Amino acid sequence: MQQPKTAAVKRLIAESSEVVLLCHIDPDGDAVGSLLGLGLALLAGGHRVTMISPDGVPHNYAFLPGADRVEKAAAAGGDPVVLVLDCGDLERLGPLKEWAAHQGKLVNIDHHPTNQGFGRYNLVDPGAAATAELVLALIEEMALPLTPQVANCLYTGLHTDTGGFRYENTSARAHRAAERLLAAGAKPWEIAENVYNTKPLAQVLLLREALARLEMDESGRIAWMSLPRSVFAACGTNDTGGLIDYPRMIAGVEVALLFKEAEDGTVRVGLRSRRVDVSRLALRFGGGGHARAAGCSVAGPLAHAERVVLAAARQALEEEAGNA
Amino acid sequence: MQQPKTAAVKRLIAESSEVVLLCHIDPDGDAVGSLLGLGLALLAGGHRVTMISPDGVPHNYAFLPGADRVEKAAAAGGDPVVLVLDCGDLERLGPLKEWAAHQGKLVNIDHHPTNQGFGRYNLVDPGAAATAELVLALIEEMALPLTPQVANCLYTGLHTDTGGFRYENTSARAHRAAERLLAAGAKPWEIAENVYNTKPLAQVLLLREALARLEMDESGRIAWMSLPRSVFAACGTNDTGGLIDYPRMIAGVEVALLFKEAEDGTVRVGLRSRRVDVSRLALRFGGGGHARAAGCSVAGPLAHAERVVLAAARQALEEEAGNA
Repeated sequence: MQQPKTAAVKRLIAESSEVVLLCHIDPDGDAVGSLLGLGLALLAGGHRVTMISPDGVPHNYAFLPGADRVEKAAAAGGDPVVLVLDCGDLERLGPLKEWAAHQGKLVNIDHHPTNQGFGRYNLVDPGAAATAELVLALIEEMALPLTPQVANCLYTGLHTDTGGFRYENTSARAHRAAERLLAAGAKPWEIAENVYNTKPLAQVLLLREALARLEMDESGRIAWMSLPRSVFAACGTNDTGGLIDYPRMIAGVEVALLFKEAEDGTVRVGLRSRRVDVSRLALRFGGGGHARAAGCSVAGPLAHAERVVLAAARQALEEEAGNA
Repeated sequence: MQQPKTAAVKRLIAESSEVVLLCHIDPDGDAVGSLLGLGLALLAGGHRVTMISPDGVPHNYAFLPGADRVEKAAAAGGDPVVLVLDCGDLERLGPLKEWAAHQGKLVNIDHHPTNQGFGRYNLVDPGAAATAELVLALIEEMALPLTPQVANCLYTGLHTDTGGFRYENTSARAHRAAERLLAAGAKPWEIAENVYNTKPLAQVLLLREALARLEMDESGRIAWMSLPRSVFAACGTNDTGGLIDYPRMIAGVEVALLFKEAEDGTVRVGLRSRRVDVSRLALRFGGGGHARAAGCSVAGPLAHAERVVLAAARQALEEEAGNA
């Protein structure tokens, strides 16, 4: 369906002396994997390539080939083809937004359903599980070298964006892409070892502190963890990503909450649920999100935030029982 | 390559009035998934089917369709076709070993490289990432119905046996099988939610206790957790599966250890490593295993076991540094 557009992009690249690739701020595995995968394939195809990630490469993706070539800023001048990867809009480029907006040969390669079509050419397909899947198709259609290095980068993007082939975006098509990447020499074990199986000590210490604070209500249907500012200072990190999975995974728990005291004393609340619509719960406190994953900010101190949000969570569970 | 054998198995099943399927004791996702997937496909194909798991269905696989039909023992008499799934040898059938050994129409369907070829027909292929992959091929070759229920069971087997498409057995072929299962209606999210995202409270409490006991040596290269018997009693479980991943994942840690005080006062030691050969370390204490994952038993008390094994681990790291 995108072949004509792809042909146009291919022509654009062939006619340009330079290709610049950009990914979004706070990059995830799909952003970095797509950036490096397409960048290395273009390099192997003889193109002059600059790969830019405004926030650099997170430490657990630093093992990927080409990570040491990634730059944080764009050079002035020239008239490069600019490939923007995994960005729903130009805001996602952070400090590079203005630079990108002024480029004439902007190509938008993305899989987010909210993509705003900001490119001269837009290779946008919400049916793709990851941008890496679209990059693979582009590499194949452009007949660029699909080296084991390129395959490793793209498998990283596909694996992380599907939650390890577990999320609802996991499709037959995603597995077909994975099959081609494995055949091209991707090494899943090497990727997993670096991406998933290695954490800074600070993260493990924060998990320890969070679990030490795990609490459940009498019904066993609500579980939560509350983290005061002092804990983040003691552990050396305030990255709470993934912590809420622990109360959430407990059998019988319907609503899981994470209370995180911010620097300014307000309390950020993360909410997860198996059935109850926690976005409605978050909305009561001026927050929002999805039915199963939402968040809000509540006035401190921690004990106050716990009291009001837990009361609302209990009420939501009772209302749900009443409706059932 | 297995088509002639498959044809023979197909004939055998067509000519028999009853098919019995067996999986191994202490069943994992591939054992249960293969048992249910093939069982449901045969049922949908109009066969008379008995599915047997000597140890039943673990709670996190109980959501799978057909789980409530699984029996624990075999009935006497008849002359059924007996399909043995995911077993390297008949010992793996536990209490059903004798029963199976006396069956005339025994079919061995497995992917373990150590498989002993104990069947009248042996559909054994160590190139398969999971037995579920072989079951899928059999279902397709026999033209049995590949329903969404069957696909869910087989995807569970494939996903768990490849560690979520991360282990070294993850192949292009495994992804091709996954593609067919997704096309047939497998629901990865539903599977993940039940298999991975739900744990008994006791497991989360044990993780909390284990992390509270996390220690590291001064070099930051050795990390360990020691669990006295009292902790297992307090948490209500002694299932330590997965705990050693936490010290192991810490960046910079070369050797991770888990000390587990057994009922008889001896100490079971689990060892993991990124580079050092911990099987040699385990061997010194009468244990064994692989280079990166090994285990041994040491005399108690815990403090003694820690002292001797940690000393040996430090020495192994020093020797490795000397050799490098």
